[in-house]
Amino acid sequence: MNLVEKYLSIRKHSEQLCEPLQTEDYVVQPVADVSPPKWHLGHTTWFFETFILKPFSRNYQVYNEDYNFVFNSYYETVGNRVIRTDRGNLSRPSVNEIYQYRNYVDEAMVKFLSTEIENEVYELLILGFNHEQQHQELLLTDIKFILGNNPLFPIYSEHKSEILNSSTNTAEFLNIEAGIYEIGFDGSDFCFDNELNRHKVYLNEFSISNSLVSNRDFIEFIDNGGYSNFNFWHAEGWDWVKTNHIEAPMYWHQVDGKWLNYTLDGLKPVNPEQPVTHVSYYEAYAYASWKGMRLPTEFEWEIAAKHFSWGERWEWTESAYLPYPGFSKAPGAIGEYNGKFMVNQKVLRGASIATPDAHSRITYRNFFHPHLRWQYTGIRLAK
Amino acid sequence: MNLVEKYLSIRKHSEQLCEPLQTEDYVVQPVADVSPPKWHLGHTTWFFETFILKPFSRNYQVYNEDYNFVFNSYYETVGNRVIRTDRGNLSRPSVNEIYQYRNYVDEAMVKFLSTEIENEVYELLILGFNHEQQHQELLLTDIKFILGNNPLFPIYSEHKSEILNSSTNTAEFLNIEAGIYEIGFDGSDFCFDNELNRHKVYLNEFSISNSLVSNRDFIEFIDNGGYSNFNFWHAEGWDWVKTNHIEAPMYWHQVDGKWLNYTLDGLKPVNPEQPVTHVSYYEAYAYASWKGMRLPTEFEWEIAAKHFSWGERWEWTESAYLPYPGFSKAPGAIGEYNGKFMVNQKVLRGASIATPDAHSRITYRNFFHPHLRWQYTGIRLAK
Amino acid sequence: MNLVEKYLSIRKHSEQLCEPLQTEDYVVQPVADVSPPKWHLGHTTWFFETFILKPFSRNYQVYNEDYNFVFNSYYETVGNRVIRTDRGNLSRPSVNEIYQYRNYVDEAMVKFLSTEIENEVYELLILGFNHEQQHQELLLTDIKFILGNNPLFPIYSEHKSEILNSSTNTAEFLNIEAGIYEIGFDGSDFCFDNELNRHKVYLNEFSISNSLVSNRDFIEFIDNGGYSNFNFWHAEGWDWVKTNHIEAPMYWHQVDGKWLNYTLDGLKPVNPEQPVTHVSYYEAYAYASWKGMRLPTEFEWEIAAKHFSWGERWEWTESAYLPYPGFSKAPGAIGEYNGKFMVNQKVLRGASIATPDAHSRITYRNFFHPHLRWQYTGIRLAK
Amino acid sequence: MNLVEKYLSIRKHSEQLCEPLQTEDYVVQPVADVSPPKWHLGHTTWFFETFILKPFSRNYQVYNEDYNFVFNSYYETVGNRVIRTDRGNLSRPSVNEIYQYRNYVDEAMVKFLSTEIENEVYELLILGFNHEQQHQELLLTDIKFILGNNPLFPIYSEHKSEILNSSTNTAEFLNIEAGIYEIGFDGSDFCFDNELNRHKVYLNEFSISNSLVSNRDFIEFIDNGGYSNFNFWHAEGWDWVKTNHIEAPMYWHQVDGKWLNYTLDGLKPVNPEQPVTHVSYYEAYAYASWKGMRLPTEFEWEIAAKHFSWGERWEWTESAYLPYPGFSKAPGAIGEYNGKFMVNQKVLRGASIATPDAHSRITYRNFFHPHLRWQYTGIRLAK
Repeated sequence: MNLVEKYLSIRKHSEQLCEPLQTEDYVVQPVADVSPPKWHLGHTTWFFETFILKPFSRNYQVYNEDYNFVFNSYYETVGNRVIRTDRGNLSRPSVNEIYQYRNYVDEAMVKFLSTEIENEVYELLILGFNHEQQHQELLLTDIKFILGNNPLFPIYSEHKSEILNSSTNTAEFLNIEAGIYEIGFDGSDFCFDNELNRHKVYLNEFSISNSLVSNRDFIEFIDNGGYSNFNFWHAEGWDWVKTNHIEAPMYWHQVDGKWLNYTLDGLKPVNPEQPVTHVSYYEAYAYASWKGMRLPTEFEWEIAAKHFSWGERWEWTESAYLPYPGFSKAPGAIGEYNGKFMVNQKVLRGASIATPDAHSRITYRNFFHPHLRWQYTGIRLAK
Repeated sequence: MNLVEKYLSIRKHSEQLCEPLQTEDYVVQPVADVSPPKWHLGHTTWFFETFILKPFSRNYQVYNEDYNFVFNSYYETVGNRVIRTDRGNLSRPSVNEIYQYRNYVDEAMVKFLSTEIENEVYELLILGFNHEQQHQELLLTDIKFILGNNPLFPIYSEHKSEILNSSTNTAEFLNIEAGIYEIGFDGSDFCFDNELNRHKVYLNEFSISNSLVSNRDFIEFIDNGGYSNFNFWHAEGWDWVKTNHIEAPMYWHQVDGKWLNYTLDGLKPVNPEQPVTHVSYYEAYAYASWKGMRLPTEFEWEIAAKHFSWGERWEWTESAYLPYPGFSKAPGAIGEYNGKFMVNQKVLRGASIATPDAHSRITYRNFFHPHLRWQYTGIRLAK
Repeated sequence: MNLVEKYLSIRKHSEQLCEPLQTEDYVVQPVADVSPPKWHLGHTTWFFETFILKPFSRNYQVYNEDYNFVFNSYYETVGNRVIRTDRGNLSRPSVNEIYQYRNYVDEAMVKFLSTEIENEVYELLILGFNHEQQHQELLLTDIKFILGNNPLFPIYSEHKSEILNSSTNTAEFLNIEAGIYEIGFDGSDFCFDNELNRHKVYLNEFSISNSLVSNRDFIEFIDNGGYSNFNFWHAEGWDWVKTNHIEAPMYWHQVDGKWLNYTLDGLKPVNPEQPVTHVSYYEAYAYASWKGMRLPTEFEWEIAAKHFSWGERWEWTESAYLPYPGFSKAPGAIGEYNGKFMVNQKVLRGASIATPDAHSRITYRNFFHPHLRWQYTGIRLAK
Repeated sequence: MNLVEKYLSIRKHSEQLCEPLQTEDYVVQPVADVSPPKWHLGHTTWFFETFILKPFSRNYQVYNEDYNFVFNSYYETVGNRVIRTDRGNLSRPSVNEIYQYRNYVDEAMVKFLSTEIENEVYELLILGFNHEQQHQELLLTDIKFILGNNPLFPIYSEHKSEILNSSTNTAEFLNIEAGIYEIGFDGSDFCFDNELNRHKVYLNEFSISNSLVSNRDFIEFIDNGGYSNFNFWHAEGWDWVKTNHIEAPMYWHQVDGKWLNYTLDGLKPVNPEQPVTHVSYYEAYAYASWKGMRLPTEFEWEIAAKHFSWGERWEWTESAYLPYPGFSKAPGAIGEYNGKFMVNQKVLRGASIATPDAHSRITYRNFFHPHLRWQYTGIRLAK
């Protein structure tokens, strides 16, 4: 694929994810962490317009000056932003207007990409591709949240089963020897700034499971009072459980003594063979404590992951999200990308069924606050 | 008009109010007091289905059992309700589905109304008409809020000017003598339970203005530091001003030293001749204090209103919303209509440009919490 | 008693109320509505210093300029105030320092009062007496709150039984005829501004109980599900019940199936013959609704109270706290006294066992927000 | 010193810290993170009673069963606890009662320690010593907060100057070579569980300052707009700055253009030569970013600290508070000590002027949430 094809292919995928939606589904924001789908469509477009077309495309006419105000996310350099919790209060621009905006920017981008582009622009373009792919993952999990918290439990798509191929019944622990290992991205392809610099770490000997914790395993935790014994929990995790009356993973509903869960193809019985998902870090930690084990660190995970399959659930690690040695952020608005989130968040490794193909890699560092559950998170044990 | 025509005419008016909307505008709920337009359309339909068709129309098939959960408002008797602040998080049922629901119920109602109906049903029907008219007023003011708080300031309709015919420049004070007066509804037509019983009150001599406070008057209050002198305010009003940084009526924006306000036909210069609107009771009270006057009580208003024109702005009174002597609420869910709101609210008298024709009357009692401003409220002085 | 004796007698009573306290009890503020006892002692002193000594006593030296900041309550005219919820965070001035401040001001007042005083000063003095008496009532109820919410349930005084003489078992309803009545204070003695002007009201015929609702009555309400049936409650009352998990009057604890309540002489069994107390307006209203009756208005109460005994419980009325016809507030800081609270509060009539002797009268208007319960409130039914 | 002398010496030090207090100062809790001094005195006593006397001292009579409810902190195993934010609402037990409780437990402990004690008890005793020393540090910083947030700025002690000997004007950067280092406690003396296990880490080459950032340095940051440029801040740090209107370190007040700060001996001019203190992690990070540098990790600090003086300010590190390899918590209530706080907190290394002698060491790990400032925190730069 050439650059234009690559660009169009990524842009099209965002729109395909929205195909099953009704117009109304594009608009709502049930909680602050979930953005309206139409905002994702506008924001990813605004990214290309703001960081590529405006500075580099001669004679480019901004589509609508007000859109900077509406579609900016955290890029404080660029102007006042709509505060995040207000996104779901904006009925305009309408979905149609946003698709027109996408078309306008896409046409300008295609035209621009058919010219010679500088290396600096090329790098911004690749960042824009990866940025849109990150939002594609959020788009799908935000849509799931919007539909899954509706009392009518509408189906997203009957062809979008969440059943995985992964078998979880032959769990074995792999041993990794102590020693110095290299961590971080190494290569000439794209990676995010937070994967750099590649550096040495010393790891103690450890064991790590070759498979994820299953729903069956997790139901055992629930049935053994896992949610009502503070001993397994962090103090903050326990407060979270009590304050929010947490008794099961997100999207689980107990009906007549049986566990159902909302999936993209509707409300279904929980499948015991599948890996548990939609758990917070607090729950992952409590589960591991109850088992007398622990979660792996992100470095252990990165070294061990060559030896097991991964990629269907983002896996909580014990590591806090911190800069690697020599980390430095880019100047200007692009520099706001990752570094400013490096406090109070936990690293997740792997990928999920919502991650676009080829978007993740073994050195990829995802990160969320420890109480969040709307991503396809999972649990892998270490000891 | 016969009953079927009356029914269809009222139902059609709700839909006409929504004609200028885009689908997205039907969905959002920017603050708890503002409901999504699609919720109003569904809720008023649910009212006829629940209180007329289900109990009285033989063989009526409920359209969708889940809708009771979604479109119930405060009628706690009838089942669990969606908590009020969550209405704006529901993308489904979609706007189309709600219009289908309306059609289904309208057809059933038309069929039902062509049969002989009992007196009890007739009274519920008239209540349903008035209920839908109340929601028509909210529909328009909620739409104004949704559009007027969007940074793009979209126009609702260019043919919906808010300019009134009322002239405010010949303000005169009318004198009303002391004596015993009769208050409350008297007649055989419909009235709300809160307008009954008609009863005697003793009024002292008072004077009341024949016109509303104008924008020119109110700008004088602003320019004289009305918002920064606690002496004019209730303690709670002053807290409200400070906490919310209130400096002008709702929808007013100061641009280059000039006051603009958002109206249904867009952002326009404030017209000094027009009556001030979108003020809270706290502001109405503070304005009157600054003038060395006061607001009328609802009883003074009802007696004096024969002598001046009214109906374009709901007028804040000094009266708290309380039951009249002998007030009793109807049994069952219908009884929840008014009585349970009779604490911590203020009475407004009159009507507004958003009130459907013939919906209000001289004994009509509207009521809101003292901080609310999104209705077309106004100020009339007494002394 | 001459003025000096009167002054000293009132001042001494405040200190007597605090005699049973340990130093620590003077300091805490468990909720915003309850002030630390030492604050009451300082604030009432500050009142005499600020409104009498500073403006009228030649050569008076202010005790400590910083105290204006600490002991001001709502008198926004006089300077910045310590925000109300912060009072309990102030360990200084210490209790001893406050008693020294009282002594200093008392000496200056005694000296000042032995001179000829003008009429304006006399009126401020009488206001200061009544102000301190109001705080004496709060002092006792705040102390009860501080001790009664301590898990050790310390006794205030074994000689301070709350058992009343009132017998509640011969409840009868008195009939009052319709007609024009005079309401408000009439006479040459002191009254608060909110009791004026005396004015005519028209009352419909009504019946009112000659006694208060008893604990036995109220337990019947509880046992009949009064707290779990929304039909008896205002919408806001019902929210209050649900949000705060209200299941009984304040200070009641169910132990082994029996009701105990905290009283000034410790935790005791609830006495069924005594009038129920520490109920909110919401509970008073719900109780009356459950009985198929209502609360009296403040006007009905004022007219009927000649015919029954009262004075041990403040009695919730159905009336909102509003100005009487012709009400006007005094200029300056004194004018902040009552008028600025005339929104969102309910009138209580009568007095309580915490009210200083001769402080209340038949025209006295007390007022609190409808959810508050820490005063000795009670319920009298009307119909 | 033998064990009894050691015990009494530590116990006495807590009481000496409170000697300058007035009774009222023992009671208040201005914010959730600050406990009333009397609570510290009771809680440390409760620790010895609960974990040593009750289980191991034959015939020990518990002083007051209710005290478990009042003085328990986070030890959820042991019973219901008073929720943390309520501590400042408890006037009882009084200060005198708590000193009596201390005497009672001290006498029982002295008697018990004069018998032969088992190793298990010895370890709990040493833990109790260290526990009380931790609370001594909090006691002093909580007292500073209570007095320093009082509008009268009372002096704690004129002999308690906070001026340090450390000179900050010859700042130099030390170079440490890359390599494998050993981290964690090594020896037979007491250490906390979070300092174990000793383990290898690989460090890259780094430079670290031999001195702390001074007030002069920090004023330069302020004067250069450090608090108003989001680029230097984490997203959460920026929200914290904006929400709380942060413009300087805690206890700083700008008066007539000059910086004063509250110290234990009162309000004084900020001394430019002294190390800056009472800054949050967010501020420490922002300062380092503005300088183009960073904070050291806790491992870098532990290796480099042999080469510079430390011990007057707790130093923020870039490290999150996480378990060392092989960390395991003790069974039962003692196991709640540290592990359950290992999320969302930052490690501080060193000690402060409030730390009791010999309480800290080079492997000691202190930890706080990133927004907290009431400890004597400081900033050391690395690059």
